Formats: sequence, C-alpha cells, structure tokens
Amino acid sequence: MTQTYNLAVVAGDGIGPEVTEQALRVLDQVAAQHDLAFARTEYDLGARRWHATGETLPQSVLDEIRGQDAILLGAVGDPSVPSGVLERGLLLKLRFELDHYVNLRPSKLYPGVPTPLAQSVVDKGDIDFVVVREGTEGPYVGNGGAIRVGTPQEVATEVSLNTAFGVERVVRDAFARAQARPRRKLTLVHKNNVLVHAGHLWSRTVDAVAAEFPEVAVDYLHVDAATIFLATDPARFDVIVTDNLFGDILTDLAAAITGGIGLAASGNVNPDRTAPSMFEPVHGSAPDIAGQSKADPTAAILSSALLLDHLGHPEAAAQISTAVEADIAARAGAASAPRSTQEVGEAIGTLVAGGVS
Amino acid sequence: MTQTYNLAVVAGDGIGPEVTEQALRVLDQVAAQHDLAFARTEYDLGARRWHATGETLPQSVLDEIRGQDAILLGAVGDPSVPSGVLERGLLLKLRFELDHYVNLRPSKLYPGVPTPLAQSVVDKGDIDFVVVREGTEGPYVGNGGAIRVGTPQEVATEVSLNTAFGVERVVRDAFARAQARPRRKLTLVHKNNVLVHAGHLWSRTVDAVAAEFPEVAVDYLHVDAATIFLATDPARFDVIVTDNLFGDILTDLAAAITGGIGLAASGNVNPDRTAPSMFEPVHGSAPDIAGQSKADPTAAILSSALLLDHLGHPEAAAQISTAVEADIAARAGAASAPRSTQEVGEAIGTLVAGGVS
Ligand SMILES: CC(C)[C@H](C(=O)O)[C@@H](O)C(=O)O
Ligand SMILES: CC(C)[C@H](C(=O)O)[C@@H](O)C(=O)O
Repeated sequence: MTQTYNLAVVAGDGIGPEVTEQALRVLDQVAAQHDLAFARTEYDLGARRWHATGETLPQSVLDEIRGQDAILLGAVGDPSVPSGVLERGLLLKLRFELDHYVNLRPSKLYPGVPTPLAQSVVDKGDIDFVVVREGTEGPYVGNGGAIRVGTPQEVATEVSLNTAFGVERVVRDAFARAQARPRRKLTLVHKNNVLVHAGHLWSRTVDAVAAEFPEVAVDYLHVDAATIFLATDPARFDVIVTDNLFGDILTDLAAAITGGIGLAASGNVNPDRTAPSMFEPVHGSAPDIAGQSKADPTAAILSSALLLDHLGHPEAAAQISTAVEADIAARAGAASAPRSTQEVGEAIGTLVAGGVS
Repeated sequence: MTQTYNLAVVAGDGIGPEVTEQALRVLDQVAAQHDLAFARTEYDLGARRWHATGETLPQSVLDEIRGQDAILLGAVGDPSVPSGVLERGLLLKLRFELDHYVNLRPSKLYPGVPTPLAQSVVDKGDIDFVVVREGTEGPYVGNGGAIRVGTPQEVATEVSLNTAFGVERVVRDAFARAQARPRRKLTLVHKNNVLVHAGHLWSRTVDAVAAEFPEVAVDYLHVDAATIFLATDPARFDVIVTDNLFGDILTDLAAAITGGIGLAASGNVNPDRTAPSMFEPVHGSAPDIAGQSKADPTAAILSSALLLDHLGHPEAAAQISTAVEADIAARAGAASAPRSTQEVGEAIGTLVAGGVS
C-alpha cells in the first residue's frame, strides 16, 4: 500500500523554481520505488506575490502549510524587494512559526569534488561533519528597532534572545546526533568571552547535558577560532552545535570548503513534530543566474533526501545521497562541459531509477 | 634631536610577554635608526593581577595609560580566569574607554607563506586587503543580561547597539583608506537581510559616505557570503568595513588564509587622537604553549610597525614590515627546524639593523 504524504512546495524566487523542479523529480522517482507518494501543494510565495499583493506569508497560507507533512523550499529573496522583507516575512517566519529549532546542515567533502583547500589540509582526514544550528532564537528573533532613522542621531538595536528552554532542546538534539555518529564528538561554538550572558547559558547547558551523554567527547571553540579550524583542519569536526547567527556564518564557510553551496543541503527540523519540517538548499536565490538553467540542483536534491530521512525513510534517503555521490564521482572523472540544471537532475534521476542503493 | 614617545606596555597573559619582548626589541632597534625613542611603562594587568587583587583595570591605571602616546599589548586571557572577565574587564575596556573605533586588521599573503588554500585559489590574484572593524559598538557593547540564571526559566540577552555617529565615523575612515589604496574598493559586510535595523543603518551610511568618495567602488556582502569569498577568492577584497562581531570573525579567517594568526597584526586606532591607540597581535594568549618560547612573535612585531605608522613614521614602519617580509621569505626557502620566539625576533632584528628598508 502506498503511503502518501502531503508536501508543501515553496519554490520561491530566482533559481528556486528550477532547482525545486529537479528535487521533486528525483523525490518522486525514489518515492515510487518505496511505495511512497507525495501529494504536492504549491504555494506562490516570494517576490512575485509581494509585488502583486504586498503579502509575504498570509495567515491563511501559514495555517494551510501547518497542516502539511513537510515543506520543500527552493530559495527566497530578490533584489527588487527591500533586503529583509522576504527573509524576515517569509523564510524566517516559517522557521519561527513552525518551531524549526534544529537547523541541520551536514557538510561532507565527497571524493573528487573540487575544494578551495590545499591538499595538505584535505589530507588531514575525512571532512564529514554536521552543524546543528539553533533556529528559533538568538540574534534572529527580530527583536530590535531604531529611533531617529535617517538622522545623525539614529540608534539601531538588535537583541539576541536566548532561553534555557531553547538552548537546552537544541543542545540535547545535537548530543543525540553526536551519540549516533561513529566519532561521538560535539563542539560548542559561541563567543562566551564577549557575549557572556548568552555564551555562558550555552556553555552551562552543554556541560549539563553532557552528563547524560558520557560517551560523547565535548569541546568548545570561540566562533572566530572555529573559522580558522574550518579552513585549516575541518576534519577535526564531527557535530557542531551553535547559535542561529554563528550557525549561519559557519555553514556557508563549511559549504565553501566542501565543494560550494551548490551541494549544501539543509533541514529546518521540528523534532517534536508539532508542525511540518522544512527542507531547503543552503544557497540563496542567485538572481544573477536565474532562469538560465545554470544552477546546480544537487543541494535541493540532497535536501529532499533529508526530508525522506525525517519522515522515517532512511533507505529512500540513502538512495538519493548514494545517487548524488555517484553523480559527483562521475563529474569528477569527466572533464565535461558544465551541465544544465535539468541535466544534473536527470543524471541523478537515472542513477536513482537504476536502483543504486 | 631624538623624539621620545611614552609607550604603555601591557604584555598580559600566556605568550603575551614573550612576543612583546621581541616586538620591543625590534621597535627599539628601528627607533634608534630614526631618532626616535620609546620611554616604556609596563603595566601589570591580566590574570596574575586579577588573581592577586581581583582587579582587571583599575581607574587609576586607566587614567595613567590615557596619558601615554601609544599602547603595545601582548595578549589577554587565561583558563584560570572565568571566560569574559579579562576580555570584558581589560581588553574591551581599553578599546571602549580609549575610543578605539577603528580596529585595523591588514591581511596579506606574503610569497612563500604556507596557506591552507589551494594553489588555484591563490592564483586568482594578490591577497592583500584590510579589514576595518568597528571597535566601540555593535554586539560588543556589553549591553545584555540574564534573569533566572541556572534555572529552566533562564533568559539571556545580548544587545547590539549601533549609532549613526559610530557607524559613520568608521565608514568614513574605511573610505579614506580605500581611497589611498591602489584598487580603491570597499566592501561592506553585514547581515542586513536579517539584522535589518543595524544592517540598514550600515547600508544607508555607506551609500551616503560613498557620495564623498566617487573614485571608490563599493559593494556589499552578507557576512555568510563573505566567508565563502575569503575561502574561494580572497583576492576580490581590498578594504572591508564591518561591525565589531563580524570583524572579529572575518579577521580570524583572514589570518588563517594568509599564513595563520602568528602573522596577523592589528591596531586599535583612535583616529581623532583623543586617547592613545593600542597595537596588538590578533592571536590570543595561547596558554598551551606559553613560556616555551614556541610562539611566533611576528604578529606582535608587525603590530609595532602599525604603531610607528600611526605615530607618523611610515618609513620606520616600512622598515619593520620589509624586514619581516625578508625573514618570511628566508623561512620559506629553508626547510629549517622551527625557531624559538627569540630566534625569530633576533632574525628580524638583524634584518632591521642591516638597514633593510
Ligand atoms: C536568507 C537568509 C535569511 C538565511 C539565513 O540567514 O538564515 C540564509 O542565509 C540561510 O543560511 O538559510
Ligand atoms: C579576546 C577577544 C575579546 C578579542 C575580540 O573578540 O575582539 C579577540 O578575539 C580579538 O579579535 O581581538
């Protein structure tokens, strides 16, 4: 009997629709092989809608999305819309309203993938880590303001809000992930020598939860030092747990060193399943190459693998990541011309159809 | 006639004293050749004093330092002191009280210096940029707090404070530096799609000041994207202007890709000269190697070059940086054993004494 999931699709702006199309193609192919089906509802959200109606995420749409089983998102943001409107009003609104407190961002350097790092760095060991980025607190809460805007007396604030409740749940999730990985190592990244209030809350929480996971080795890095290690010895990382803003920064750098944001997938996960989780590539809408079929859909495709895993289908998920790995290996071998968005999707689709697993 | 400057020396913790000793040796050598002298006052500040007296920076010491012409600082921080006590109570206190609003951090990849970047990235062009990090505002103001500490109801905040006054003066300084450099390019780094209040203040200010510098080309990057470019195409940068926290993060990464924090110098500059400026290596106190004569004093030595430049002696400053460059080139050639802190200082001192300029 086929198990059918209701899938909200928010293709969004720029290259969002192109890469989402390929992700859906591969998702449907692998689903069919596992007696799964996705009943899609497409939501027209993003720059077009904002220009047409002034809306970013109407309450009625949010309510509808809340009833779905999962969300696949392409990309959000367009230069024609003032910076922050769609990010805060749509993307972050979804993450916050749906309580996506675990923003999961795996980084793995696949064999043959070009990296900006020197061979001597790559040779230090396998680069294969996951960043557990807090998704509902920190400097992202939108708790700031400004007075006397546009005058020489302007003052603008941004408030980072951090709660024991919010920090503990994401730290516990990160420990559980570390426990389930072979190396069992967790690194807290913060800046507790400057942001002492938030930082000490994070440090104390990690110390407390560590007692429940005696097999997990724990260390701490300031965020500035963490960027050094990402550039000089990324193999040292296994699971990183960090706040919303530091996680944003570290995961772009992590993507860069593991082949670029064309390959970086992410899940905005609500581990309590009180609302649907959302899966999206780490990359943005890349308006400069939109509509030209130049975007690499691999990150979107890998995001659909994270989606399958979250829904409880790790084998189906592995089928996608294995196909992606095979495709990447094939690319690395051939000094071929760049492929179109569709060609990459088709190639991975063919590998999935071939029953690679 | 010899011009004498009053120099406050805060050697600090860990490797601070070792590297400062070498910086002072080289500074004195080059000073003598330029009819300059430094009358030093050493201030016993840091972990030892805190343990002995509970003081980080007594008002009377601050008042005395305020009367000096410049400050040379080694490093601050020790694991025996709770994280944040010395950083907030001494280092940041000096930066804030002495209005060091320009935190100047040049990055240059010298020929022959090992970098973690692939040759293909290095080949893209000369890596030679400067980060102008705001030093007296942003998330570093220490404007945060916590309630119900240690309970499940704990809430901790960190407030980023940004003023038109504070942003404009550092942005104008950065434009002036860009104007004086051959490439005349300025990149604002922020996160104005999420931190919209602070971010838009920064963006509007850059737009406004740009009108005064029509020859400077301006662009903008989100902080996450900036880390990608630092890893994949650092030659794209000339002058980066950014806030206190983003500057902290970017400059460690910048140091990593240009040979490591053993080489990264910085100036905490008060361009209005209402108080002495302070020069320090970007690296920390590295307690793990303290007292072993393993620390590379190059960053401290280069910081003394920035000090000379700030005091109006660019030729003396260039003499130091040229000597450092020659020393680095010599290191790169010889596959020699690692040198002690003192040996590096002596080698650079010899090059300076040889009248390299
Ligand atoms: C688009 C932006 C709001 C977003 C973020 O900052 O979280 C993006 O950079 C990401 O990492 O998903
Ligand atoms: C030690 C610490 C407070 C300091 C900072 O965050 O500014 C250091 O990292 C630096 O970059 O000078």
